[in-house]
Amino acid sequence: MVKKVLKFGGTSVGTSERIQHVAKIIKKERFAGNKIVVVVSAMAGKTNELINLSKQISEEFNKREMDVLLSSGEQVTSALLSGALTEIDVKAKSWQNWQIPILTEGEHTNSRIINMNIEKINEYLDDDGVAILPGFQGISKKGDITTIGRGGSDASAVAIAKIFNADSCEIYTDVDGVFSTDPNKIPVAKKIEKISYDEMLELSSLGAKVMQSSAVQTAMMYAIPLEVKSTFTERKGTKIFSQENIDYSKSVTGVAYSKDDAKLTIISVEDKPGVAANIFEPLSKAQINVDMVIQNISSDQKTTDITFTVKRDDVAKTTQILKNNSKIKYKEIIHNNKVAKISIVGAGMVSTPGITYRMFRALSDEDINILAISTSEIKLSVIIEEENTLKAVKKLHTIFDLD
Amino acid sequence: MVKKVLKFGGTSVGTSERIQHVAKIIKKERFAGNKIVVVVSAMAGKTNELINLSKQISEEFNKREMDVLLSSGEQVTSALLSGALTEIDVKAKSWQNWQIPILTEGEHTNSRIINMNIEKINEYLDDDGVAILPGFQGISKKGDITTIGRGGSDASAVAIAKIFNADSCEIYTDVDGVFSTDPNKIPVAKKIEKISYDEMLELSSLGAKVMQSSAVQTAMMYAIPLEVKSTFTERKGTKIFSQENIDYSKSVTGVAYSKDDAKLTIISVEDKPGVAANIFEPLSKAQINVDMVIQNISSDQKTTDITFTVKRDDVAKTTQILKNNSKIKYKEIIHNNKVAKISIVGAGMVSTPGITYRMFRALSDEDINILAISTSEIKLSVIIEEENTLKAVKKLHTIFDLD
Repeated sequence: MVKKVLKFGGTSVGTSERIQHVAKIIKKERFAGNKIVVVVSAMAGKTNELINLSKQISEEFNKREMDVLLSSGEQVTSALLSGALTEIDVKAKSWQNWQIPILTEGEHTNSRIINMNIEKINEYLDDDGVAILPGFQGISKKGDITTIGRGGSDASAVAIAKIFNADSCEIYTDVDGVFSTDPNKIPVAKKIEKISYDEMLELSSLGAKVMQSSAVQTAMMYAIPLEVKSTFTERKGTKIFSQENIDYSKSVTGVAYSKDDAKLTIISVEDKPGVAANIFEPLSKAQINVDMVIQNISSDQKTTDITFTVKRDDVAKTTQILKNNSKIKYKEIIHNNKVAKISIVGAGMVSTPGITYRMFRALSDEDINILAISTSEIKLSVIIEEENTLKAVKKLHTIFDLD
Repeated sequence: MVKKVLKFGGTSVGTSERIQHVAKIIKKERFAGNKIVVVVSAMAGKTNELINLSKQISEEFNKREMDVLLSSGEQVTSALLSGALTEIDVKAKSWQNWQIPILTEGEHTNSRIINMNIEKINEYLDDDGVAILPGFQGISKKGDITTIGRGGSDASAVAIAKIFNADSCEIYTDVDGVFSTDPNKIPVAKKIEKISYDEMLELSSLGAKVMQSSAVQTAMMYAIPLEVKSTFTERKGTKIFSQENIDYSKSVTGVAYSKDDAKLTIISVEDKPGVAANIFEPLSKAQINVDMVIQNISSDQKTTDITFTVKRDDVAKTTQILKNNSKIKYKEIIHNNKVAKISIVGAGMVSTPGITYRMFRALSDEDINILAISTSEIKLSVIIEEENTLKAVKKLHTIFDLD
């Protein structure tokens, strides 16, 4: 008998019909003899609706009460889904954060799950029941309701899978799985059958919005097998394992690209210890998310050029902060607002020679100029002019046999 | 220092603006030096929205899960109101049913509050905080969420006022108070300043939808002073006391009328013990609500006529049940689908001679025929042709000095 955690996202439970459909999926899993713990999100749109209400009252809405407010969304879904299961003769029961309880620590609106009492739920599973749990929430040691940040139902599902020692954690969503690149833009994109946690993390952080990064990290840490699949088709999804369990026939798993990037270069900044910290600390404090950072060895040993990327909306603010920063000396700041980051990701890259060269050659064949390069063990990213994005992605997708 | 329970109904908290307005009312009460416990309903429309979702899934939605579902409505309001109070610098905190806890007994969707742990909330009040509690709900001894029936927030407020030993319980709603008759139909209707629990109960059961009858009953049982007032005006509301605290300058307090009534008469039914039980037991089992019942002394000592009223929609079903009832013998059943019940209510009636006569004379002066009469200590009801309803109400309102 296999113990599974099934997580259903907001669009999967967005209407009463969809909740009835989800109930049928659960029934099938249950009647196949599995022990099922279900984790649900709020119905699509619900959380935004509640946030809007709170904003109408205050832009700085009290965080304790924000958690009380938002946690009601998953409560509604858990009750509706449990009722839908009962209706089709599946023994089921909703459990609220305080009834379990799901213990969290950390700040309101940004806590994390640390433990959970599983005894009563395990008894219920042994007694052939399906347990429906609310994602995204828990209670603090003081007994207050807490939430674990937007999109946190993925993190809930993985934490719950870990605490229950589940055999797998299946993330049901509105896409078929993880793709080799964006299927909306590149029609030859293919669904990836198996992918490692590392690759999934790189793809997530590169804009593939299939699963929350922190949830993948937790799954990796505790080696919980994940599967991302669609609620709306019967197709197989993407399985996410540890690297050693994957047979890499292909060196590159996927091609990702980011939108709305801008590149800034600080020309002839002093090359001395602490200069990078002096540049980036004020940006971080201003909540500016700096992505790629590239610094070459300086030619004259005294000054160097530092290039980095930020979101396009942050360019003006970033420039202003750099100009007001009395701790750094430099000649000038130049920026290019219309760049894109193209990345190839693959756990097999490290063991396959020539990947880097093949990427650069391919881009050159298409007359695409590379503005900056950054590499990690399983990822290779380049910055190019934005207008070349799709051309580059298509080319790379083809030459690395992903079509 | 006065301890007050303030209850705000669904329309009073129906939008974020209204919640902000309610926060101001509470701030005023709090800064006047009172200890304030607030009981809130779900935002107007919310409960129906959730019920509709459940009905889309099942007409016989699981009752345990129905309670989980519906209780989320008051949770949302309590969080929004508490956030709105914090925003205007009033110390406030929402408490959920399980955090208090509010203990209930009885069936799911129809429980009643039996106790509550008030220690922590009293400490919070002593510490100048305002406690926001969800109406309409509690938890069972088993730790499941329960609700106390539609409109149950009034009952919650009164039960909470009793358990806290509050000095008063104020019901904020969308009308100015209790009126001498329906102000929408009879413009000369006047707001009643003071009314006894008994009179309020008669008026409630006669169709004045200002407050839930069971809540008034509880308040009467424990002598909790009530006040019904508008959230949207600064006008004084209606105070509801025990009878001995009211000075009756007027013998009649209000004129009520019911709509959609029908009158049935069973002609020449056998006059023997048990016949009434034989007639009404099957009707009760079929959920038919029988209102007035009139039986005269029989002239021939063998048969009598029994007249009673039911809602118009139930006439066909009632007639069918009577015809299928083999336990009763009668000559025929006649019915009149277009009747109305007009009642005068007043705790002073019993001590004022001639009220009955004056009512009958007034109706006769207007050429209104009385089809049936029923009296109690503080109420006198007559059945008349429906077309005469407004004429009768206006006349009675005038002659009993209510204009």
